[in-house]
Amino acid sequence: MEAQQFREFGRAAVDLLADYVENIRDREVLPSVEPGYLLDILPQEAPEQPEEWQEIINDFKETVLPGMSSPVCTELEVLTMNWLGKLIGLPEEFLNCSSGPGGGVIQGSASEATLVGLLVAKEKTVRKLMKLNPDLDEDEIKPKLVAYTSDQCNSSVEKAGLLGSMKMRLLKADSNARLRGETLKQAFEEDRAQGLIPCYVIANLGTTGTCAFDALNEIGPVCKEADVWLHIDAAYAGAAFMCPEYRHLMKGVEYADSFDVNAHKWMPVSFDCSAMWVKNGYDLINTFDVQRIYLDDVQTDIKIPDYRHWQMPLGRRFRSLKLWMVMRIYGAEGLRNLVRTQISLAQHFANLVRADDRFLVEPEPSMGLVCFRLKDGDNINKKLLKNLTNKKKVYMVAGSFRERYIIRFVVCSRLTNKEDVEYSWNEIKTEADLLSQEKIHAKAQIPAIDIVARELCEKSK
Amino acid sequence: MEAQQFREFGRAAVDLLADYVENIRDREVLPSVEPGYLLDILPQEAPEQPEEWQEIINDFKETVLPGMSSPVCTELEVLTMNWLGKLIGLPEEFLNCSSGPGGGVIQGSASEATLVGLLVAKEKTVRKLMKLNPDLDEDEIKPKLVAYTSDQCNSSVEKAGLLGSMKMRLLKADSNARLRGETLKQAFEEDRAQGLIPCYVIANLGTTGTCAFDALNEIGPVCKEADVWLHIDAAYAGAAFMCPEYRHLMKGVEYADSFDVNAHKWMPVSFDCSAMWVKNGYDLINTFDVQRIYLDDVQTDIKIPDYRHWQMPLGRRFRSLKLWMVMRIYGAEGLRNLVRTQISLAQHFANLVRADDRFLVEPEPSMGLVCFRLKDGDNINKKLLKNLTNKKKVYMVAGSFRERYIIRFVVCSRLTNKEDVEYSWNEIKTEADLLSQEKIHAKAQIPAIDIVARELCEKSK
Repeated sequence: MEAQQFREFGRAAVDLLADYVENIRDREVLPSVEPGYLLDILPQEAPEQPEEWQEIINDFKETVLPGMSSPVCTELEVLTMNWLGKLIGLPEEFLNCSSGPGGGVIQGSASEATLVGLLVAKEKTVRKLMKLNPDLDEDEIKPKLVAYTSDQCNSSVEKAGLLGSMKMRLLKADSNARLRGETLKQAFEEDRAQGLIPCYVIANLGTTGTCAFDALNEIGPVCKEADVWLHIDAAYAGAAFMCPEYRHLMKGVEYADSFDVNAHKWMPVSFDCSAMWVKNGYDLINTFDVQRIYLDDVQTDIKIPDYRHWQMPLGRRFRSLKLWMVMRIYGAEGLRNLVRTQISLAQHFANLVRADDRFLVEPEPSMGLVCFRLKDGDNINKKLLKNLTNKKKVYMVAGSFRERYIIRFVVCSRLTNKEDVEYSWNEIKTEADLLSQEKIHAKAQIPAIDIVARELCEKSK
Repeated sequence: MEAQQFREFGRAAVDLLADYVENIRDREVLPSVEPGYLLDILPQEAPEQPEEWQEIINDFKETVLPGMSSPVCTELEVLTMNWLGKLIGLPEEFLNCSSGPGGGVIQGSASEATLVGLLVAKEKTVRKLMKLNPDLDEDEIKPKLVAYTSDQCNSSVEKAGLLGSMKMRLLKADSNARLRGETLKQAFEEDRAQGLIPCYVIANLGTTGTCAFDALNEIGPVCKEADVWLHIDAAYAGAAFMCPEYRHLMKGVEYADSFDVNAHKWMPVSFDCSAMWVKNGYDLINTFDVQRIYLDDVQTDIKIPDYRHWQMPLGRRFRSLKLWMVMRIYGAEGLRNLVRTQISLAQHFANLVRADDRFLVEPEPSMGLVCFRLKDGDNINKKLLKNLTNKKKVYMVAGSFRERYIIRFVVCSRLTNKEDVEYSWNEIKTEADLLSQEKIHAKAQIPAIDIVARELCEKSK
């Protein structure tokens, strides 16, 4: 959306809010719609082409406003999570529109989704074991439960273990930073031999450090055989699955119990909006439902879910509204184009780096991320990044790969263009040139310093 | 703020956003400000009188924008939480601007704050016990920990126990729906005798059902003596403490370790914005910090807190912005006026109810809440509420007090005026009149039905 369009859309939205408040006494205090009303009138798929904001505002007035607030807040979330789930090619079992108990829910962040998955896995495992053996005590089982992920995981994954009181094993990824099935299987066996109980696995599709993809097609069957909850954290890279050419990276997704992608990361939805799907919504309800008198008026229907039992807090915002608007403003094609453009810009950057033989691109670029370094060793790279950060023209964060310091260049804004990428590369190149000159200069100075040092040394004797 | 002003303010905000995006390439990628810059230039107290939106937009451009995003996001939160903490009269120990390690943080909801408190209390208790007795095992301690609250608590409090894997005892409140110190003390003793460990107490200042206030001045010393974490859930009623005449209801607040009020509930801040203060920020950091390489660039300074260690998720929104704007647009006086006006509207409603001798107001109105019922018994009141709900002119939710069904009338919108209250009472009265007529009509019919029933009965013999 161009700035001028945004100004017009924004003004129309402000007026709509002001009109609403000015005329609030003309409205009834409760909506007059039947459950499912919105799912019946809105399309079942995201539009392929962008739509005009005037049309969206109009639909808001005609379809959303009559269902304010609770029915429409739930139903628009069901609808948009179906749209997005279909768009990224999730198996039908994850969708509310399938015949089963699956469905999507918007959480605040991938951290929250990982913790939700962990709490549900814990509850489910405890119930299962107590059913198998009624003499078992819940308090004996819980300390034995173990969660597993790769040592490349985001720190929020580790934090979930901390918050959910579950041991979290960070398993060694392979030389390409991917967690492999065999490693996981071995960890299960080691732990079982010690009387521990594998409970929860987080597979990372697109790690934070290098955007590596865990071998889901190996991990999935290991989890399935062990009857362990498999959660997929595709916080960033999940958006790429909107493009069929990247779906091979989620081969094995059919083994997962839950899947999460941040619509606020690579899709242009404002923070926060973390899209999570589960195959069985009842698993969430069994973990999060506390029935009390003043909540008695709500029925449990998995097709019109009572989302407060699908999450940790009780209250919830109307986050599907922004997801709905973004999907309509861009259209499916527009969203796929954003992903493809940004990946090709990253490729362009990688080519610029490769053309300079002082630099290495390593590992292979993945999605919008290009990791690179000067061939000369860690210290010079640290200095390069420090100088660039101080100059404030490009902002990058370091990482590590095969125990080497790497600099991470990411394209992730809808506004980034080819000129920005070339501008960034020139900034990097210029700083590298300066560092090369300093190095030559420093080398030339060493003998002189050596002489002074030797003299001082002799004097002090 | 009047609708016309809102339209102008809204348009200016939309333009500001569009300008920002259009000129984004003129900006540096990192701010050039020193830690503490904003705390140095902005006032240390909320303004007493309302300010003009033009001034706020101007300050936004001149003071907030130069610190985008991380420094200003943190510092404005520190500042506004100091403003609000002072405004509601919290002891200085809770404020970042005191000499100690206290401070405020914005959480998403009171549910989240209660759970945060529980996790911190758990971690702190486990550490303390393991320090006292190094042979103890963490897994032995955790199942023995117990949390306590009143049976009048919000279901989110119970949910916190569920999510944090801690037994949550719902203690019997007294006949005025208040939890008393003696009840808590006795529960501690009972549990200790069984080898359990009191760990966490949630005192409710303003319960959901009847807006009752737990006897904090009794509960506080009991917690202190037992060295148990005391959390105060003042989600709704906490806003009233802006007015000194209601602060007697939080007598004993000095015993608390954490305090929470929803700025999004009774203050006119949009959802979500739950204001939480703790006396010791290090307790949060010790619970939530997971140090990893790509987060290495941040220092730990309790005065410029790294808020990601003060909460459950890693990511956070810039919620202090709306709190800052609301406090400036209304001014302290305007916010206190909102509370006082709404309480006096509730009193007006209570007087209207009391003047009709078919009705009882019970318990005594508290804050903006008036609980009432027809004297005739639970069924007629259920029918009354059902009819009113179906008519969609007034929306109220039921509760219970001393095992009687009550109807809860709450004034909690800044827009509600005397006419709205009188309109509501007329609606209620009209429905009550209809029910009275039905009753008379039904009574008149009973003999007839009795005759038929008797006849049928005789026929079937």
